[in-house]
Amino acid sequence: MTTPDPRLAKLSLNQMTTRSWSVREAVDGCVRAGIPAIGLWREPVAEIGVAAAAKAVADAGLRVSSLCRGGFLTASGDAGRAALDDNRRAIDEAAGLGTDCLVLVVGGLPDASRDLRGARQRMADAVAELAPYAGERGVRLALEPLHPMYCADRAVLSTLGQALDLAEQFPVDQIGIVVDTFHIWWDPDVWAQIARAGARIASFQVCDFLTPLPADVLLGRGMMGDGHIEFAPYQQAVAAAGYTGDTEVEIFNADVWATDPDQVLATMKQRYVDLVLEG
Amino acid sequence: MTTPDPRLAKLSLNQMTTRSWSVREAVDGCVRAGIPAIGLWREPVAEIGVAAAAKAVADAGLRVSSLCRGGFLTASGDAGRAALDDNRRAIDEAAGLGTDCLVLVVGGLPDASRDLRGARQRMADAVAELAPYAGERGVRLALEPLHPMYCADRAVLSTLGQALDLAEQFPVDQIGIVVDTFHIWWDPDVWAQIARAGARIASFQVCDFLTPLPADVLLGRGMMGDGHIEFAPYQQAVAAAGYTGDTEVEIFNADVWATDPDQVLATMKQRYVDLVLEG
Repeated sequence: MTTPDPRLAKLSLNQMTTRSWSVREAVDGCVRAGIPAIGLWREPVAEIGVAAAAKAVADAGLRVSSLCRGGFLTASGDAGRAALDDNRRAIDEAAGLGTDCLVLVVGGLPDASRDLRGARQRMADAVAELAPYAGERGVRLALEPLHPMYCADRAVLSTLGQALDLAEQFPVDQIGIVVDTFHIWWDPDVWAQIARAGARIASFQVCDFLTPLPADVLLGRGMMGDGHIEFAPYQQAVAAAGYTGDTEVEIFNADVWATDPDQVLATMKQRYVDLVLEG
Repeated sequence: MTTPDPRLAKLSLNQMTTRSWSVREAVDGCVRAGIPAIGLWREPVAEIGVAAAAKAVADAGLRVSSLCRGGFLTASGDAGRAALDDNRRAIDEAAGLGTDCLVLVVGGLPDASRDLRGARQRMADAVAELAPYAGERGVRLALEPLHPMYCADRAVLSTLGQALDLAEQFPVDQIGIVVDTFHIWWDPDVWAQIARAGARIASFQVCDFLTPLPADVLLGRGMMGDGHIEFAPYQQAVAAAGYTGDTEVEIFNADVWATDPDQVLATMKQRYVDLVLEG
């Protein structure tokens, strides 16, 4: 047992960054690396069950900074109702894991639809339906605006401003937003919107934006320092807005996934200290 | 000589849609297809010279709806000064071709820079330097916000709102903006910004947004109807804002480029009538 590095006190490993690891392996990896928090994903949690995952994390003395993810709320009819049921289960899972933050990726245009306005309205209606259910369980739904290149197929929620326009219609303990550098760094209005977000900031995620984008644009998320984003101003902006939670590193990247996860954590800690905290 | 189809009276072929064609071939193709306007690119124009290109277009009775493109204004030092010189040449070329619209793709982050704010400031300074030069020659610089996925490597101008914030600092005959469906369709604020743009709209370009994006994301621009965009509301919105100019079809797409250009024009006319004009 080494003395914890105080600089890492608010660092969280989002489990997707070490995709090959199970929940237990990721928990053990965080302990070895002195990383005090973890962002879990529902699929690996389901492999051992919520109770066992919660126990593994608690036994290791880690925090759960978020659960990824609910959402996909743009369908209508039976598919829409099934999505609401699945999101209620996700809320229950978040509560069971002891995190107050469920990240929502809201979904894109349904197949063959070009009705963006309609998809956005169904998403808003679904959020309204889920908000009290979440609040009653001590879970906040964290609306994540995704980069506009995913608007068609993944998230019709595209900017912090749009996310806040929706979030502000609900109590702050029910609906928050995610600040993820990859998705928002291009936004000319980003600083004003982070300041506006204030107590709505439910999660802060970092990773870099790479060019050229890979063939699968979902995997264009890079280790901090490998791309185009200047991180320290974002860390400072969320702090100035009042955010005191963890900074999650969430990277989807084939090269990172092919690297020894312990090495990924070592690099991630160094880059976090050098580029996110100190800039 | 067939009777012109009145529905095509405001249709323009952007030359990049038929990339394999020279200026003369594209002009002849437009005449065969009954398309009354063309958007030219500097590189094919340079192959025969501005005067010969202008004569070819005039002899055929076509309008030049725009010249693509100037811009790349984010570098500093010698590279920045060279870019200004090149843009002055582009303005002269636009004047020589008889078009009042020079499209600007403003440029991304300079190599290895992460200073997005600085790049945006240099871009704005360069626009200020070029604006009177353009205005004196009867050419309007059309600021084109590009999709945010190109922010790092192609254009730090990412939204209509950002483009208008800059454009409005200058006389309306010097600086306008481009409304290109591909780049802006995801923007939750798009309708308000098109209405705000009003007489600033210097060019209206259409093409569709495809998923999955191809490996080279520059080539994700599809024929209208092949992707996710509903076009008629955009045609109606620019008209409601007062725009009376041409609708340019500008497609960068490997499959389109591999198709017989006359067939591309036939498809383009049909889709324009069915999806853009009538919706």
